[in-house]
Order: sequence, then structure tokens, then C-alpha cells
Amino acid sequence: MINIAILGYGTVGSGVFEVIRTNQEIIDRNAKDELRIKYVLDLRNFPGDPVEEVLTHDFETILQDAEVKIVVEVMGGLKPAYDFVKRALQNGKSVCTSNKELVAAHGPELLRIAAENRVSFLFEASCGGGIPIIRPLQTSLTADRIEEISGILNGTTNYILTKMKTEGLQFEEALKLAQENGFAERDPSADIEGGDACRKIAILSSLAFGKTLDFKDIPTEGIAGITHKDIEMAEALGYAVKLIATCSEVEGELHAAVAPMLIKRDHPFFAVDGVFNAILVRGNMLGVTMYYGRGAGKYPTASAVVSDVIAAAGSLQETIPIRWKEEKLALSDNADWVRGYYIRAERNVEEIVSQAKKLFGGVERTVEGEAGIGLITAPISEKDFEEAYAKLSGAVNRIRVMYTRERN
Amino acid sequence: MINIAILGYGTVGSGVFEVIRTNQEIIDRNAKDELRIKYVLDLRNFPGDPVEEVLTHDFETILQDAEVKIVVEVMGGLKPAYDFVKRALQNGKSVCTSNKELVAAHGPELLRIAAENRVSFLFEASCGGGIPIIRPLQTSLTADRIEEISGILNGTTNYILTKMKTEGLQFEEALKLAQENGFAERDPSADIEGGDACRKIAILSSLAFGKTLDFKDIPTEGIAGITHKDIEMAEALGYAVKLIATCSEVEGELHAAVAPMLIKRDHPFFAVDGVFNAILVRGNMLGVTMYYGRGAGKYPTASAVVSDVIAAAGSLQETIPIRWKEEKLALSDNADWVRGYYIRAERNVEEIVSQAKKLFGGVERTVEGEAGIGLITAPISEKDFEEAYAKLSGAVNRIRVMYTRERN
Repeated sequence: MINIAILGYGTVGSGVFEVIRTNQEIIDRNAKDELRIKYVLDLRNFPGDPVEEVLTHDFETILQDAEVKIVVEVMGGLKPAYDFVKRALQNGKSVCTSNKELVAAHGPELLRIAAENRVSFLFEASCGGGIPIIRPLQTSLTADRIEEISGILNGTTNYILTKMKTEGLQFEEALKLAQENGFAERDPSADIEGGDACRKIAILSSLAFGKTLDFKDIPTEGIAGITHKDIEMAEALGYAVKLIATCSEVEGELHAAVAPMLIKRDHPFFAVDGVFNAILVRGNMLGVTMYYGRGAGKYPTASAVVSDVIAAAGSLQETIPIRWKEEKLALSDNADWVRGYYIRAERNVEEIVSQAKKLFGGVERTVEGEAGIGLITAPISEKDFEEAYAKLSGAVNRIRVMYTRERN
Repeated sequence: MINIAILGYGTVGSGVFEVIRTNQEIIDRNAKDELRIKYVLDLRNFPGDPVEEVLTHDFETILQDAEVKIVVEVMGGLKPAYDFVKRALQNGKSVCTSNKELVAAHGPELLRIAAENRVSFLFEASCGGGIPIIRPLQTSLTADRIEEISGILNGTTNYILTKMKTEGLQFEEALKLAQENGFAERDPSADIEGGDACRKIAILSSLAFGKTLDFKDIPTEGIAGITHKDIEMAEALGYAVKLIATCSEVEGELHAAVAPMLIKRDHPFFAVDGVFNAILVRGNMLGVTMYYGRGAGKYPTASAVVSDVIAAAGSLQETIPIRWKEEKLALSDNADWVRGYYIRAERNVEEIVSQAKKLFGGVERTVEGEAGIGLITAPISEKDFEEAYAKLSGAVNRIRVMYTRERN
């Protein structure tokens, strides 16, 4: 029997509890041992809930119990999660977490402490919820030089952008709908300003490239500036608007960004709608692969956490290796990053295309509609674009176009 | 240093050779040792090719060389692959193969022989080419009861169906185009009649459900009966036509089939076009996940083979476990499998809907166009459908509609 403790009985914690109870037989078979939840830590009481039998308010009880081999941290945030996780690892317990803030801020340090104590630190659920991506990056995509990792990594913003398209809503209306349906927090800033996606792409890029991408180094823009008119115009041009988190190597330069981008109809991200997430990995031999699924939610996230628990259970005597060095990844300045841009204009419609052709070195496609005129520029560096855009009269908005190296 | 031998220097074999040479540094780092290609077995000579240095015509040389720890089998077919693989395993060498025929016919036996000899038998590249799916099924999707595994598993037929849609071609014209572009063999029957997809879904289902699904037990239909008019009509109804290989559990009954099916616009398979493949896995906790990428091709397939070599290299002292018992999976009769059906009629257009409503217990959607009338029936069992369809006058074709348990 392998004893585990769950820190936090919120949405994910109660999900982990239920997943283990519901699929106990399958899970024990895959873990090759019986998994038992010995403790659940929460400050609250849950009268009448089956968790009562194993509930504790005291982390020290768990820490000092040598029978507990695996700790599941699903509290979220840095305080007290960081301290709890570190001490659990130091006391010889493997830790499985869904906490992207913790992993983005302290991942390589915690991996080092785990290795020093011959235990594992696993965090499959921290990126892409139920989508298996971290283990495949470590064990399947091993024959390739990774050239790009990109994702639709935030379900809230993807739901909002999808509703703006399908229901013709403005941003604020779609946000309200997301809140009513439980897909957005009351304070939605971490989602809509891109901070959540930024932490996730920092973790994924660190794993893909083997060194630490500091999330604070990633230029991050949210979706509050996207109007329904932009989405309509993008659609007429053959694109969808998505919040993209991306890191890619182009001729030896590494670029990363989180920003709304236009996605072409033949790109595998185009049809990823609603609360679904997707992660694309491009390798120099493999070409493009994409992983799609529910990026959040109680059971998908809990399922990913439990898959980590099963992996940890199968490797109690040794550390499961994760290639992520503390050394920092050097990002190039995005001023040099070349891509097309979408521009929408409501005034100056007659002249704007000829003006844009001169300013941006070319215009690849245009469309006119009720929302004015929309165009896609030729590929241009961010710096040159911003300079030229400042000179363009009549434009009301611009959005980056996602660069695609190969057809799909 | 770990010595490997490659059996077969065809498309995939030369791909493995090139992937290892090109990404040697990354591969050695991930394998935690230097991988060296000591032999390549082929009956032919390749004057001037770098393979010359390591080429051999004699399998016995490889078999008797105790330095060779890993054998890569990429010859295809059963003869002599089955014999070679079995003897390599018996001689204490791990085997990595891309050979779906071999795995579908002898998978559990070869896994057993590998385990008896404390070596590994790995076959990531046998299904879905460069898409990592076999390792994720074994190591990531472990907390769930798998309820369904389905795929677009054959690039040739997906290319043909895509070209029929986008270029308005008839089946024969699209097949010719596929042959001209190297996406179909001169004898394309294994692809277009569904035999290739059938073997792949047999392997994937065996892994998902843990027991052997015999590929000969899977009702299999190809795509030769699909006309351009059907694809156009399906599109007007909001569907794409894809060759689907599927195995799913519905209320304790396990059903499997390979057949062309209509895919609804909001299904993640809808936008999987051209030579791309996709595999969907539905778990009772995870919901739906999908894995997308190049299902064939020299480098993607070779990349998957090399990822297996890296895994085998990291586990030379013990067998990498794969859950696949020799015991057979019992399939239920598809006569009871309930789904909607697409029907197209060119005569009797005025009456066909009212006739269909009575015969099939309901009609969910209809559309009229140049190609006649198209309709989607209410869900109905295969047996009841076939009986009713025989009574319908004016129908020229019918195609199954892919059943979706949850939205996406």
C-alpha cells in the first residue's frame, strides 16, 4: 500500500479524491500497488463529506508521517504551497502538483531538491489541464530538436473569444457570460491579461528547450482590446482570433510572446473553440504535432494529477528525470520578430491600402465590410511595424498574425 | 556506447539513419549514452551512400553480435520480420518497430517473449506515424477508464477525401493525384479498403482496453463507395466525410468498426485534413483528448522509432511494461450499435423525407441541392437501419454518422 496526502480540498483536490475513489481498481493496477489517501489537508471542515475521515488541519502531521510517500499539492498560489512542497520533498516525499504559479516561479529549484532527496517532483496538470504534454515532452518527443512550442493555454479567454464570434458579443458581454457559467473568476485579470497563459508557456518552453524561461521575460498582452468588429473582420479574411502563447527558435534566435493572434483556417489551432486548449510542438524531424483537450475543470485536471501520482508510485526509489536546468534561456528582442499584421480601419478606407502597401512593404489580403476595411500586411518586424503603424491614418486596431513555418 | 542495428534501409530505415545522424547530440543526451548504428541490414547495395560502412546482408551477423542491444525493425510485412524480431528478442536484444502488420498479428506474443528475456518490444511508430500515442496511453492516460479510442489513421484516404472536397474531384481522380504525389501505393488496396486503418485501431484498442482486439474481428469498409456528390451534400449538411477507425464501450458493450463516417463541424476530427492523422481518446474523468500530426512520412515515422530506441536505451536491464494481454477482447455485434445515418437520394425527392421519417423513426436534418436531397436520420441500430434502408426508394447512397457522446 502507498499512502498519499492531498493538500487542499478545493475544486481540484476534491476531484483527485473522487477520481481515486471512482477508478480505484484501474489506478491500483496501473500503479502496481494500492493507493490510499491517508490525509487531506484543508483549513475548513466538511461535515457529512466522505473526506471527513481523513481530514486534517495540520500540515506537520503529514510531514512527520513517514508512511506518506506522495504529497498532492492542489492549493494553488505560492503561500504556503512553496514552503509545504519544499519541506515535503526534503522529508523524502514525492510531490505532484497542478500549481502553475509554483512551477513557473520555482520549478528548477524544486526539481533539484527532489533529485537531492531521491524523490520526484511532477506537474503534468500545471499546463493544459487534462492534456498529457509534460510526460510526452520528456519521453516521446526525444528524437527531435524542438523548434517551437505554442498553445491556446487559457480556457477562459478562448471561451470569451469563441462566444464573441459565435454569438456576436462584445468583449464585456462575453466576459459576463463566462463568469455566469463558471468559466471566469470574479477577478478575471489573471486570465484576460494573459498572466495565466504566460506562466504555462514559460513552463512548457523551459521543458522544450531544457533551460529556464522566466515568465517575467515574456512580453504579454491580453484580449481586452479585441472588439467584436475585429473578430468579424478576421473571419471575413479567413482567420480566427485566439490568445496564443508561443516560444520558437528562428535562425538561432529564441522568441516568446503571449498575445491575441490571427490564426489561419488551415492551422490546427483554428478550430480549437470554447474552453478547450491545444498545444502544438514542432520538431525538426517530426514536423507539427498537436495535443488537444480540456485545459481546466475539476475532473480533467484531477485525472492529470492522478496520472502523476501513478508515475511517482511506480518510481518510489528513484527520481523521475525532468530536463529543466536552472540556467536561464536567453530570449531575443521581439523587435526583430517578423510576422504579418492585421489592421482594421474605419476612416480613410479608399486610401488605406495604397498607404499600407508603402508603409509595410506590401499587403497580402484585404476585405471590406460593415466594420470598415481589414487587411493583412506582408511579413514585417515588430519594430518596423510599430513605426509604420504610427504613420497610418484611419486605423482603429491591429493584431499580430500567427506565423506558420510549414503548412500545418 | 549502445550499439544498434537497423533491419531494412527503405524509406523508414534510411529515415532512422538520418534522424540519428542529424540529431545525434540531442539523442545521446536523452538516451544518456552514445547510440551507434553498428549494422544496417538490407539485401541491396547502396554504392556511395554513407550506409555502406555499416551495411550487411546477413541477419545472423547481427543476431550473434552480443554488442548489439537494440534492433530496429523497419522492413514491414510478416516475412521475414516476424522471425527476425522473435529471434532478436530471444537473443536478449530489445526491438523497436514501425511494422503495424507485425504488431497487429503478433503483438502480445512478442511482448511476452520480450518480458521473458528481460528486454523491451516497442512500436510507437506503428500507429499514427509521428503522433506520440502508445507511450501516452501507457504512462499518461493511467487514471482513467478509457471509454473510446478513435482515429483518422490512414493518411492516403484522408488525402483523397480532402482532395475530393477541396478540388471537387471524383474518387478515382483523387486516388490518381495521391499516387502521382507519392501519397498512395501503386496497389492502394490496403489503404482504400481500410485494412491499414483496421490494423492500427486493433493495436490501439488492445492497448486502451488491455486485451487483444483481433483485427480480423473488426468490420471494415473502405472509401471507394464515396462519391463527390456525397461529400458536397455532407458539407451542405454541416459534416465532413472521413475514414474513421473506432472502438468504444457503450453500456458494457464493446463495438469496433472501420468505415467512412460523417463528422460534425464541432468534432475535433472535422478539420483534420490532407495527410494528417488524429487519434481521439475519451476517458471517464479526462473527457476527450486528441493527438494530431503526420501519420506517415519518412522523418515523422523515423522520429517515433528513434524515440522508442531512446526509451529502450534507458531501460536496458528491464522490460518496459506494456499492458496488452493475449486474452481476446469480446466485441459485441454491430447490429445493435446505434447511430445516425446520412442518406442521399436523386429520385423520389418530394416523398423521401416523409418516407424516411416513418422508416427510420425520425429525420434530424435535410438539405436539397444539385446532387439531390440529403438527410440525417435519427439514431437507429445498424440492423434496423439496413432493414429500413432496403425499403426506401430513390436512395443512392448511405454513410454512417460518427456518434459523439459529449460536445467535442
